[in-house]
Amino acid sequence: MSDAASAAAARALIGDSEFDRDTAVFRREEGVYDLELSAGWTILGAVNGGYLLAVLGRALGDALPHPDPFTISAHYLTASRPGKAVVRTRTVRTGRTLSTGQASLFQYDEEGDEVERIRVLASYGDLAGLPDDVRTTATPPPIPPLEQCFGPEDGPDPLQGGSAIAGRLMLKLDPATLGWALGQPSGKGEMRAWFGLADGRDADPLSLLLAVDALPPTAFEMGLQGWVPTVELTVHVRQRPAPGPLRVSISTRNLAGGFLEEDAEVWDSADRLVAQSRQLARVRLG
Amino acid sequence: MSDAASAAAARALIGDSEFDRDTAVFRREEGVYDLELSAGWTILGAVNGGYLLAVLGRALGDALPHPDPFTISAHYLTASRPGKAVVRTRTVRTGRTLSTGQASLFQYDEEGDEVERIRVLASYGDLAGLPDDVRTTATPPPIPPLEQCFGPEDGPDPLQGGSAIAGRLMLKLDPATLGWALGQPSGKGEMRAWFGLADGRDADPLSLLLAVDALPPTAFEMGLQGWVPTVELTVHVRQRPAPGPLRVSISTRNLAGGFLEEDAEVWDSADRLVAQSRQLARVRLG
Repeated sequence: MSDAASAAAARALIGDSEFDRDTAVFRREEGVYDLELSAGWTILGAVNGGYLLAVLGRALGDALPHPDPFTISAHYLTASRPGKAVVRTRTVRTGRTLSTGQASLFQYDEEGDEVERIRVLASYGDLAGLPDDVRTTATPPPIPPLEQCFGPEDGPDPLQGGSAIAGRLMLKLDPATLGWALGQPSGKGEMRAWFGLADGRDADPLSLLLAVDALPPTAFEMGLQGWVPTVELTVHVRQRPAPGPLRVSISTRNLAGGFLEEDAEVWDSADRLVAQSRQLARVRLG
Repeated sequence: MSDAASAAAARALIGDSEFDRDTAVFRREEGVYDLELSAGWTILGAVNGGYLLAVLGRALGDALPHPDPFTISAHYLTASRPGKAVVRTRTVRTGRTLSTGQASLFQYDEEGDEVERIRVLASYGDLAGLPDDVRTTATPPPIPPLEQCFGPEDGPDPLQGGSAIAGRLMLKLDPATLGWALGQPSGKGEMRAWFGLADGRDADPLSLLLAVDALPPTAFEMGLQGWVPTVELTVHVRQRPAPGPLRVSISTRNLAGGFLEEDAEVWDSADRLVAQSRQLARVRLG
């Protein structure tokens, strides 16, 4: 657990937390942002796709006239590594309620040339400006209370051994979807967890982009091992989350031809569906 | 019903059908395609978003080294009109299994300047080259046999009066999701239909991009009236569809703050889930 996490009694604030420091972008010129991808959000050396999306989302939030990602679609091109990066943004259209932008994250090859890692299209708006009408048939995921769920730190064999990101997250998995960690996957493509940031920072629209891609892959509960790299991930942010831990439910219904979809829902402490996402991922059997 | 449709006994072939002619793109120079948006795919004057996506998908299929859209994300910027248009594509990355491209559709303002209508990011592959492993928990939508379902031509008051697209499609709606047409919406955000092209052309990956956005909006069955413009639509094409009519199921679980998601599933005659999509749409009450 990181230093900040041990100090969780004094909860980190939005704007002054590990997540905020590690997603910081520095405007070099209009629409161009320098940054450092942190090694703190890696799993076995690979930088987490949700963290990367949050970095891109933050740059776009600065570049566009609206603050919040309403829908953001990312295509993952090459594997990102911790270290220097640059985000280049473009404003596509500016409207009253929504503005649309494009962004690419680049890193550098040995000659110092830019290599594109991810390209994103997004439409931004202002969540605070929306009417509060809700009509929903969606219900929160059935997950036991937080203290009956299990995280990497609860097992003799860490669930995500060698994964720096485990120290950045408060992730407590529903025991009903933990069979894979005990060598007994259920065969169902479902995973549920309580989610927060280890230093106690509350959720905001940017951290929702992280939350949708932070659980172990559904493929593990389907009995598959190995790597499940994301091809494309689209997130809809539907509401500004209330303070307190989130519940995240992910599911896969269809694996075919070596590809699967993974859907995520994120619920806040006020029982509101605050984000939905879907990704297309490749199954690379280990 | 169009001339071609009346001749449906002699089914139109892929490559020689209304859909193929109306999505034709003509390469002006590398990556740039001229075309004419047909008035045949409009609903009350608005060009159908799935038809537009198929046009963009066709241009990208020509520009990229791989033929089939595996995942394609479109952000809709301004309203398209029937008439002249140009698609400009860019190859983002070329890999062995997947290549990624970007495309924009433009039309012309009164001065002849280009106005961007839609921007798209997509990853293409070769559906024919995929292994045929399938693990799925998804089941086909519960829909009565085709002859027990109803289309615009079956009612005294056409379901989509004034809509040219009705003549291009074979669309037969499940009576259980037709309450809205009789002034008695169920309140549930679900719609199911048999789907085909009126001239009998079989489905292919491009026409799946049309199929996901061809049903009346779920909002109608939720008791809402008015316009539901798409902000963003992402489609995953999972399999090459078998010949025969498709079953399309769309659903909305959550309307909040004036926005809703609409998920679509498309099943082929071999009971395979051939496409999944999700869109974020705005609700503009009439």
